Amino acid sequence: MSEVHELSHEDLTFLEDFMPKRIDDDANELPYTTLTWAQSLDGKIALGRGLRTQLSGVESRSMTHYLRARHDAILVGRATAEVDNPSLNCRYPGASFDDQPQPVILDMDGRWAVQGPTSKVHGLATTKQGKFPWRIGGQDVPGHTFIAAVETDRHNITTISVPKQAGRLAWRDILKAIKKQGVNSVMIEGGAQVIQDLLALPQLVDAVIITVAPTFLGSTGISISPAERRSSTGEIINAAWLENMRSRPFGNDIVTCGRLAREIPSSPGRSFDIAMR
Amino acid sequence: MSEVHELSHEDLTFLEDFMPKRIDDDANELPYTTLTWAQSLDGKIALGRGLRTQLSGVESRSMTHYLRARHDAILVGRATAEVDNPSLNCRYPGASFDDQPQPVILDMDGRWAVQGPTSKVHGLATTKQGKFPWRIGGQDVPGHTFIAAVETDRHNITTISVPKQAGRLAWRDILKAIKKQGVNSVMIEGGAQVIQDLLALPQLVDAVIITVAPTFLGSTGISISPAERRSSTGEIINAAWLENMRSRPFGNDIVTCGRLAREIPSSPGRSFDIAMR
Repeated sequence: MSEVHELSHEDLTFLEDFMPKRIDDDANELPYTTLTWAQSLDGKIALGRGLRTQLSGVESRSMTHYLRARHDAILVGRATAEVDNPSLNCRYPGASFDDQPQPVILDMDGRWAVQGPTSKVHGLATTKQGKFPWRIGGQDVPGHTFIAAVETDRHNITTISVPKQAGRLAWRDILKAIKKQGVNSVMIEGGAQVIQDLLALPQLVDAVIITVAPTFLGSTGISISPAERRSSTGEIINAAWLENMRSRPFGNDIVTCGRLAREIPSSPGRSFDIAMR
Repeated sequence: MSEVHELSHEDLTFLEDFMPKRIDDDANELPYTTLTWAQSLDGKIALGRGLRTQLSGVESRSMTHYLRARHDAILVGRATAEVDNPSLNCRYPGASFDDQPQPVILDMDGRWAVQGPTSKVHGLATTKQGKFPWRIGGQDVPGHTFIAAVETDRHNITTISVPKQAGRLAWRDILKAIKKQGVNSVMIEGGAQVIQDLLALPQLVDAVIITVAPTFLGSTGISISPAERRSSTGEIINAAWLENMRSRPFGNDIVTCGRLAREIPSSPGRSFDIAMR
């Protein structure tokens, strides 16, 4: 199941436009950020809450490992890290230790249970098949001054504390904090809540790469669907738009890439052609 | 907005495998049945209940009109016929009156409000730009004998009554009834409930053609997601599988075609490769 093979030249060409480019590293206080997930045709990433569901086939899974080689870090939410206990390493053929992405677990409330020696990430790191994880923790601080405290514990887990914001994740601060640690590109792999939040923050996201598997998980599955958006007059409008959308088959799956539109039309509509022009 | 253009040779080649073939017409008691809809990346067909939402662009809308020329009938549910008041005709370039599909409204409970002279379908029929609609009505009959009564009213609406089954639509009877009226192929365009029901009945469906628009409608949108399916041991499993899935860009949209797998694996899994073999 975990066999990972090299992508074809055509696959690599298809992906290249959406890959991080080293040239911009110093110009930006934010890392190049890619949102990526595998979903069913009905937009679900799992059969139900807490159910680990394998969606991608060997070809699109190989693509994921290629993406991991091309990004400095992988970020997932705490619940995903617990349910899936993922390896978060890169098994792309020929990947060296330097190609291993930095695993980052988002754990603002300090509730991450599967850490230290019980986690797969940790096990892989002790045998040099991956890096020791970072944990993004939340810190209650008065005011809005940017602070990121960094400390490493006896299990080699490094905690980066960023200020909490009332009621929501301070995504810009989180991304700035990991950039300050030398991460120039990060792929964010889940879970649903993390991705939904970021789909509504197009100014923080550089690329979206979705694997669509040829199945319907059904009505009780976990959706990736951003929170409803309303126009200034209270009308429900499209929550997000993907520009430059391109698709390509990877085995039995379809991989769709695009960039989130920064400006959202203020009325519902099909596309910028109709809604904005 | 309703401009419809001719598809390219490549577009037609892409679709051809999924088109009805005249050669099988007499061999089957069922029509060739195509499920087709337009959805967002998050699997939604509308921004909310009762909100008509334009998703497909001119290219994929042209494809829909080509499909209408290639099928004998279009079927939609009553609620869709009311909310959208759709024209249900074929505006593909060069389409003659003979190319017009037969509009069929599924109205088992006899509640269709937008009919007769108030409906767009009716208006188009009076000016020969489409056909007068058929209405599928439900009939309470004891036992399971197949009956289809046919009558035409003063507005030229023909009602085909099929037996009601307790609590659910008798899809096989409905499709048999329209086949008996000479319909060898039908495309089913909505709404969500109709499509979800049929996704769970792969033995009745010959092709699935989905237009995916480059947008997310958001969490309050109306999903196309079949009812949950459980294995004999009570586990939630994938609700449906698409075989021979193929995709192609149509303008800014992606069109995905496939056939519903007749046999569903009894355990959750990624694909037949893994789950069945």
